[in-house]
Amino acid sequence: MRGLMKTARGPGNLELKEIDEPRPKKDEVLIEVAAAGICGTDIHIKHDQAFYTPPVVLGHEYSGKVVEIGPDVSQVAVGDLVVSPATQYCGICYQCKTGHMNRCTAEGKKILGTSLANGGFAKFLTAPEYIIHKIPQGVSMEEAALAEPTACVVHSVIEKSPIIPGDVVVVQGPGTMGLLAAQVAKSMGAGKVILTGVSADQWRFDIAKKIGVDMTIDVQVDSDPVKTVMNESDGRGADVVIEASGACIACNQALDFVKVAGHVTLLGIRGQSLDIDLDIMAIKELTMSGTWGTLPSSWVTTLRLMASKKIDVAPLITHRISLAEWEKGFELMESQKAIKVLFTEFD
Amino acid sequence: MRGLMKTARGPGNLELKEIDEPRPKKDEVLIEVAAAGICGTDIHIKHDQAFYTPPVVLGHEYSGKVVEIGPDVSQVAVGDLVVSPATQYCGICYQCKTGHMNRCTAEGKKILGTSLANGGFAKFLTAPEYIIHKIPQGVSMEEAALAEPTACVVHSVIEKSPIIPGDVVVVQGPGTMGLLAAQVAKSMGAGKVILTGVSADQWRFDIAKKIGVDMTIDVQVDSDPVKTVMNESDGRGADVVIEASGACIACNQALDFVKVAGHVTLLGIRGQSLDIDLDIMAIKELTMSGTWGTLPSSWVTTLRLMASKKIDVAPLITHRISLAEWEKGFELMESQKAIKVLFTEFD
Amino acid sequence: MRGLMKTARGPGNLELKEIDEPRPKKDEVLIEVAAAGICGTDIHIKHDQAFYTPPVVLGHEYSGKVVEIGPDVSQVAVGDLVVSPATQYCGICYQCKTGHMNRCTAEGKKILGTSLANGGFAKFLTAPEYIIHKIPQGVSMEEAALAEPTACVVHSVIEKSPIIPGDVVVVQGPGTMGLLAAQVAKSMGAGKVILTGVSADQWRFDIAKKIGVDMTIDVQVDSDPVKTVMNESDGRGADVVIEASGACIACNQALDFVKVAGHVTLLGIRGQSLDIDLDIMAIKELTMSGTWGTLPSSWVTTLRLMASKKIDVAPLITHRISLAEWEKGFELMESQKAIKVLFTEFD
Amino acid sequence: MRGLMKTARGPGNLELKEIDEPRPKKDEVLIEVAAAGICGTDIHIKHDQAFYTPPVVLGHEYSGKVVEIGPDVSQVAVGDLVVSPATQYCGICYQCKTGHMNRCTAEGKKILGTSLANGGFAKFLTAPEYIIHKIPQGVSMEEAALAEPTACVVHSVIEKSPIIPGDVVVVQGPGTMGLLAAQVAKSMGAGKVILTGVSADQWRFDIAKKIGVDMTIDVQVDSDPVKTVMNESDGRGADVVIEASGACIACNQALDFVKVAGHVTLLGIRGQSLDIDLDIMAIKELTMSGTWGTLPSSWVTTLRLMASKKIDVAPLITHRISLAEWEKGFELMESQKAIKVLFTEFD
Repeated sequence: MRGLMKTARGPGNLELKEIDEPRPKKDEVLIEVAAAGICGTDIHIKHDQAFYTPPVVLGHEYSGKVVEIGPDVSQVAVGDLVVSPATQYCGICYQCKTGHMNRCTAEGKKILGTSLANGGFAKFLTAPEYIIHKIPQGVSMEEAALAEPTACVVHSVIEKSPIIPGDVVVVQGPGTMGLLAAQVAKSMGAGKVILTGVSADQWRFDIAKKIGVDMTIDVQVDSDPVKTVMNESDGRGADVVIEASGACIACNQALDFVKVAGHVTLLGIRGQSLDIDLDIMAIKELTMSGTWGTLPSSWVTTLRLMASKKIDVAPLITHRISLAEWEKGFELMESQKAIKVLFTEFD
Repeated sequence: MRGLMKTARGPGNLELKEIDEPRPKKDEVLIEVAAAGICGTDIHIKHDQAFYTPPVVLGHEYSGKVVEIGPDVSQVAVGDLVVSPATQYCGICYQCKTGHMNRCTAEGKKILGTSLANGGFAKFLTAPEYIIHKIPQGVSMEEAALAEPTACVVHSVIEKSPIIPGDVVVVQGPGTMGLLAAQVAKSMGAGKVILTGVSADQWRFDIAKKIGVDMTIDVQVDSDPVKTVMNESDGRGADVVIEASGACIACNQALDFVKVAGHVTLLGIRGQSLDIDLDIMAIKELTMSGTWGTLPSSWVTTLRLMASKKIDVAPLITHRISLAEWEKGFELMESQKAIKVLFTEFD
Repeated sequence: MRGLMKTARGPGNLELKEIDEPRPKKDEVLIEVAAAGICGTDIHIKHDQAFYTPPVVLGHEYSGKVVEIGPDVSQVAVGDLVVSPATQYCGICYQCKTGHMNRCTAEGKKILGTSLANGGFAKFLTAPEYIIHKIPQGVSMEEAALAEPTACVVHSVIEKSPIIPGDVVVVQGPGTMGLLAAQVAKSMGAGKVILTGVSADQWRFDIAKKIGVDMTIDVQVDSDPVKTVMNESDGRGADVVIEASGACIACNQALDFVKVAGHVTLLGIRGQSLDIDLDIMAIKELTMSGTWGTLPSSWVTTLRLMASKKIDVAPLITHRISLAEWEKGFELMESQKAIKVLFTEFD
Repeated sequence: MRGLMKTARGPGNLELKEIDEPRPKKDEVLIEVAAAGICGTDIHIKHDQAFYTPPVVLGHEYSGKVVEIGPDVSQVAVGDLVVSPATQYCGICYQCKTGHMNRCTAEGKKILGTSLANGGFAKFLTAPEYIIHKIPQGVSMEEAALAEPTACVVHSVIEKSPIIPGDVVVVQGPGTMGLLAAQVAKSMGAGKVILTGVSADQWRFDIAKKIGVDMTIDVQVDSDPVKTVMNESDGRGADVVIEASGACIACNQALDFVKVAGHVTLLGIRGQSLDIDLDIMAIKELTMSGTWGTLPSSWVTTLRLMASKKIDVAPLITHRISLAEWEKGFELMESQKAIKVLFTEFD
């Protein structure tokens, strides 16, 4: 089979290579990939700007069908439609024992599509049974390929952000994570979700409206976005602000948007330090949380919400291409012309 | 009587002025001050670097005896020994209704010793009954004058920081707030409290040892304080870091000291923005909290802990002077030669 | 004016009496009642089965218009449309200082319509400004009369029950509290709300369907309600069970309906002890919470949810009558032929 | 080797049998037992009153030294001194995925000393690596044998009960669990721990005093224990009550001891239903929690607290005997003449 592989360190070094079809180890399942999405991290790996261990087949957002199981596998069967997180965990280290499997510190930890384990940009991949989740009825294979980013957002928002029904929530950045965060906030009962972006995001705002965002703010057009947020929140500010843009300026603005005794959730990554007045954390009596990846519980909640359509990821899938067209897919993402590009053919 | 009054905006403008003795309004009590501490905020007001409304008698950390009560006062009696927070609250605004009386937004809000209400740097002051707390047996009047800063720390640490028994806690900055934070962390069962400071803080470290701090780090001498903290925490980092120094560099170091999935508490105020890599919040899955002042519940807990000596503020009282010597008191604080300076004579 | 007054202890002693129109004290407002609902507690007071201090005009679920204000009132104006909790609080006692104003222990505490303060079963009543909340746009005066029971449910469910999006929630008892609890659970994102009742509740089940309940169980017809709940929850049991029936048998069943590591919320009152196996609390690792009345924050959330129609109380108003017809109103409630009976004329 | 084995269902059927020494599977370690405690559950199994699967060597509270490891074991080495929970978990089921490994629902789940896995009442036992915890320096092998019951209490009290510094905590029942709960509450900063028992518990009260209990109440002598608790808590009641006696009457009394807005922790098991007025849960706005066993995190905290002597289990070890004397050991426990009986010789 052919896999889209990062072959070596450095910018580029990405190519479609012929590799052996994998076979499941005793506690693993062999999965035929149905759909796999290109993530911002894949772009960063291409440009040598993120953690990875080459050579490795990329692709950690995927769905597929189990076609073979190892002899020790007991709860997953051939024919099951499945998804999984990328990151494996040992269950033994301090972080695992204290409930933070997403930050497992085991040496040689495998991360599908990133480090020491090939990912879903190929016809087949293998994964250990314990990280597998079955796709519930009513969720298509294409939608299921977005379970991974959705679970990241569920972890950050449902598991770590104190949103209560009726809250005003500002989401900064209308990319995949922002659009998912808006929906997850709505699923918690947010009364008004305000999405911020720039003028080039107008087409994203149109999608945002379809998935339930109440209001959008183009921060390049609105002369005083903070005032707008205040007006939309009885002069108090947003109960919770979710930073999903990765822009430094947005991080500062988050502290202005948020109400006294509110909460700021950091979903975006800036890739650099920033200049910020953290005294506001004290003066406004704020809390802030950052999260990384997912817990097993995040997947349980994610799949339940996807099955009931409380979260509808379909509008985020803007492009479907074959793996052979991978360069086009990466170009769409890098030029910010796509929200989610899925590979749906792998031959 | 004479009161130490900030007479007008601008640097300085601080003088001991003859003013009329106050009389309690119907819901107020008249308090004869027993002791009143100089706070960093008083220094900032002197230098026109904090919020205040002149003219106003300074002093918001005080203890005293009730000598007269207004006709509507029902739960406080003449002769009661009392303390109170500085900040009054309306009970009606959104912040009050949602449990954040410390951030009451009422117009014309009175803050003892700061804005629209004279404070404790005088023989007498008045305060409304509803903010009064009685001093429990076993707490001296001098100790009680430290109830206000202690309650600020109790709010920040007990009410907002997730310390569990056995935790390694780093406190940055051996001033009043840091030394109180160390004791409060200990009261929650912290197994190891590590206090950081600079070489000039050696005498403060000596006091720290007396109040139960397990270890001190002079960050000007230790070539790798982060490594030291890691060594003291089985290589994991501190469970909770409490930033009480107000130094920008400490704020950055807090993110390095803290373990994955740990918490950073912001007690100190920098008075400026800083350059910081907040990606660490996500990468290490951290939470951060800032707090401002106290809730009524903070005082209930504070006085209980002071009565049982779980918190012992006596070693923090380094100087006792008369109000007439106020310039000496301010000089001691500004030159960082004192921890807490108390006025104990007011004639 | 005439007020429906409990004149003395004992069963009955309820009569429409001519009384003086009240005048607001300096910190009070005078309210012309628009609508007032009959609560189960009013029935209990009639039968001498609840706490009350006669003589007192009943009625603690009301809405009205401010027609006069006392001289110290600053945030409420004549013409404002308002609601309020029944229970006043001192702000001074231990319970108030620790955030439990709903359990204020002040001597002589006034409870509108119950003890030491006349209620809303009359043309006018007075209330202190600090307990008043303004009715937001889009909420009718009749709907607003249900803000009080809604706030009780918001306190119990949003403020004390750990429901997350997608959860299966069982609500026991299709009375006012149960129907409100179902909606409040939905507002938190509950994926499936199952309402239990008896055969005589069929007409209530019809209303339940209109307000979003996903499924109803007639426990007199279903031969194995626990099995039904298990089937509806992938064999796990309900994530949260809200007991709103006041029936002893329901309380036992709650422990069977709930999943391992789930939560049971006690909204109903039985008026008697019951035989129950609390070992299940340990074996299933459960949590349980009971609540009483409302906090100020409960009202902030309630009115926001009513304004956005996330909670729609209109379908619960089954009867509107004049105060003169009070006997009919009480009979409707006692014979369980009504959900909410409102008095809407008071002359 | 000889193991104390429950050979078949029914009362009795307990005998010291010659069995083969076990060998570790690939992911297991072989442990030479140093000490093993008799638990109340062992007594219940003897009398056929608890869950178990015969034939099985009893003993789930143990410490030992690793003498052999399977080929897949990576983090534990021969010579390591270790303890472990009894209950294994699959990591795959809904309960495991949502963080409740203590309630794993895997078919064929192994529980050391209880079901499908021989326990520590023998010279050797095997356990899978992932449940193993290393004994920290400063904890003796005898003390370590009490890590299992201590971890159960840490889970129930530290992980599930809202104790804050200065709190008044009532612990009901001076058995092993109650005496551990008292210490764990103290480790969280409890200001006053009151232990209740009966007249026959006088010798247990003496031990309680040694481990830091502030006050004991003999409920057979004190004519009004509720009044006593009120007097000891400024008339408010205990902030938290921990029921560790398993007596029905204590469960009722817990609701009387606890303050308004307090918490009741259920550690004890009654083995029967009881008559109780749960309306108090609502009237007093209470929360209640029950727990079962331990989470991995419970062990991390337990061993840290034992290492620092914040929890000192040594005074609870009242008897040390050889396995050959097992009948004497069981008799000591059944006649309530012992707190903890340890087997320390196994030949």
